[in-house]
Amino acid sequence: MKPMGPIPDGFVPGPHGGLTISGEPAVGLFDRSGGTPLFVYDRSLIGRKIAQFRAVMPDNVALHYAVKANPYAPLLEWLVSYVDGFDLASSGELATLERAGGLVLPVSFAGPGKRDTELTQAIERGVTIHLESEGEADRALAIADRLGITPKLAVRVNPPFALKGAGMKMGGLASPFGVDADRVPALVCHLIDAGANWRGLHVYAGSQLLHAEPLIETQRLTVELAARIATEVGREPPELNLGGGFGIPYASTDIALDVDRVGQALGETLRAAPDILSSTRYAIELGRWLVGEAGVYLTRVIDVKDSGGRRFAITDGGLQHMLAATGNFGQLLRRNYPIANAAKFGEESSQEVTVTGCLCTPLDLLGDEVMLPPVGVGDIIAIFCAGAYGLSASPQNFLSQPVARELLL
Amino acid sequence: MKPMGPIPDGFVPGPHGGLTISGEPAVGLFDRSGGTPLFVYDRSLIGRKIAQFRAVMPDNVALHYAVKANPYAPLLEWLVSYVDGFDLASSGELATLERAGGLVLPVSFAGPGKRDTELTQAIERGVTIHLESEGEADRALAIADRLGITPKLAVRVNPPFALKGAGMKMGGLASPFGVDADRVPALVCHLIDAGANWRGLHVYAGSQLLHAEPLIETQRLTVELAARIATEVGREPPELNLGGGFGIPYASTDIALDVDRVGQALGETLRAAPDILSSTRYAIELGRWLVGEAGVYLTRVIDVKDSGGRRFAITDGGLQHMLAATGNFGQLLRRNYPIANAAKFGEESSQEVTVTGCLCTPLDLLGDEVMLPPVGVGDIIAIFCAGAYGLSASPQNFLSQPVARELLL
Repeated sequence: MKPMGPIPDGFVPGPHGGLTISGEPAVGLFDRSGGTPLFVYDRSLIGRKIAQFRAVMPDNVALHYAVKANPYAPLLEWLVSYVDGFDLASSGELATLERAGGLVLPVSFAGPGKRDTELTQAIERGVTIHLESEGEADRALAIADRLGITPKLAVRVNPPFALKGAGMKMGGLASPFGVDADRVPALVCHLIDAGANWRGLHVYAGSQLLHAEPLIETQRLTVELAARIATEVGREPPELNLGGGFGIPYASTDIALDVDRVGQALGETLRAAPDILSSTRYAIELGRWLVGEAGVYLTRVIDVKDSGGRRFAITDGGLQHMLAATGNFGQLLRRNYPIANAAKFGEESSQEVTVTGCLCTPLDLLGDEVMLPPVGVGDIIAIFCAGAYGLSASPQNFLSQPVARELLL
Repeated sequence: MKPMGPIPDGFVPGPHGGLTISGEPAVGLFDRSGGTPLFVYDRSLIGRKIAQFRAVMPDNVALHYAVKANPYAPLLEWLVSYVDGFDLASSGELATLERAGGLVLPVSFAGPGKRDTELTQAIERGVTIHLESEGEADRALAIADRLGITPKLAVRVNPPFALKGAGMKMGGLASPFGVDADRVPALVCHLIDAGANWRGLHVYAGSQLLHAEPLIETQRLTVELAARIATEVGREPPELNLGGGFGIPYASTDIALDVDRVGQALGETLRAAPDILSSTRYAIELGRWLVGEAGVYLTRVIDVKDSGGRRFAITDGGLQHMLAATGNFGQLLRRNYPIANAAKFGEESSQEVTVTGCLCTPLDLLGDEVMLPPVGVGDIIAIFCAGAYGLSASPQNFLSQPVARELLL
């Protein structure tokens, strides 16, 4: 038996047993979608996260949604009413967000490899471009000049510090992301001289962080760094994007991030911020933390078999939809995501079973030697923490398998 | 500086310099495809591999193509004339192969999670199903009975031995793949009793093997095991699929598999095989070894930037097309695939550069501190060994990036 991650808050057995999602039996949802694997996203759980953010964060910190975490259009449409802005990583996301009505909110666009066509679209639509290099700055200025539009430009800073303990570090080192901090003042002056609408600074130091202290320290250092750059430039930055990095627990050894403490400390940091930041609008961009735990991946058991003294449940899903849950998306170590037998959710876990997808590869492992209520052919397996970096971060065409459906409840 | 894998045979600078693929300048191919990243597959290099197989393998060993390695339809259409059969992993692959005219050859279908609809389609089209469990056998028999068709059924055996040194082991352990060897005779007898057309046995012990000895030993053990099972059943197996497992060198420490030796040893093994296998048709199923080195992924440099004393070239491609090249597809260790600056292919590698994709994640690393001829904006980067488990094994929708094109030369 191997451990699994904790079932996220908000998933409970229904009055007649079995997993319910937003009050509806999970098994029924699966049937409704027509028999292929299904991602279900529960708005009420995302709403709880948004409310938690509002309750604990300082009032002058805006909440942005990082579209890359989950670009499902109905989700974006719904979020427009609840978040303060969106962060994009491609013009594909821009197109989806535009169709979802999201351009009524502040929108920014970061990413180290923006094509000219992408810069053009962003400038035309009034999106703030987070410049990642001097070369990109010159391309953006030239395009804006050609279009006759004053571009909204911010600078992404490669900070001289890293987010300690982050699942993914993006600062403190030579990096393809952002401009090294010591070159940023000159770049900002160049943008202002060229007549751009300088929107401020962006620092993203890492992601999937579960410990409050390094996150607090990073936010403090980010504010300090921004003040130093602004002082050198001699101009208040209208906006400071503090990045994100809020993690969620996936595995048994993960603990939830103490967001209360982060919010309290950020309040202190902002109250103590130098005067040059006194009118700055702060933003935190969150993806995983907002939507990750609100998503469940449902897949049906096709076969149950015994081999070498072990029991295997083979499902019609797999890594083609949930690559990260199989431990194959950049993870050094495979650890079990929380997983359940949907119809028997809450019943005693009396059977050790290894749950796999249907692919012909040993990589396709969804639950390795997990304890579940007995699993039979036709049962629905639920894999939690599937709301962020799930379907869109998976090789959906692998082995020419059917696509998964998505549903927002 | 970090090493990279060896450039596969067959890629040479053209008469005016620069990488050519099948005699055409790579840079021109990229322009022709319309500006997004492009996979190019060179038929002549696949043809060389097929010829090599024919030259070194015993005459009674058929060459099957494993569609999952690369399901690009024009490639399948072309292969129909050159291989002896196809192996499928899904009904999606079956549909593609049918459209490509591939059903004129022997076709088999393996995979641990075959849905009833897939079994139905396979039986209707005369595809040999490689059964992975007793439960699947019963489902297939019931469906065939309903259809009034005699099904072609083989049994995939979970062997009591593993392919030592394989990139991916699939035998010798409790496994979701195949039926444990000691239960196979009873299952085969059950199939024969039920009136099925028993087609034989299938053993797949691992993949991406670069050392001849364990492969030779595995093939020897496979033939022994098949003979033992056949003797117990009291019937000659019409077919024995020996699996595949032939690897290709991706990284600097990889060596090419000595296929000559494998072929010679297999000849000896088959000459010494027990009489009960005397009329058996043998097959080897290859994907990666046939097409992997014939594919090149071409992507354009969008930005060149310096950070912390290092130079970065940011391309418009990335892990959304070539996940395995970034080391994030189940690999424990990231190692550089062979990579080149296409227009300067063959020139002196005088500059250390880190080549990334355009995604906003540190995972998106295509060439880590590689030595290349100087790289500038607009240059075309070629990543080799992109013909197998490339585009179809990558998260193509990740960050809503444009799709890659494909081209068969």
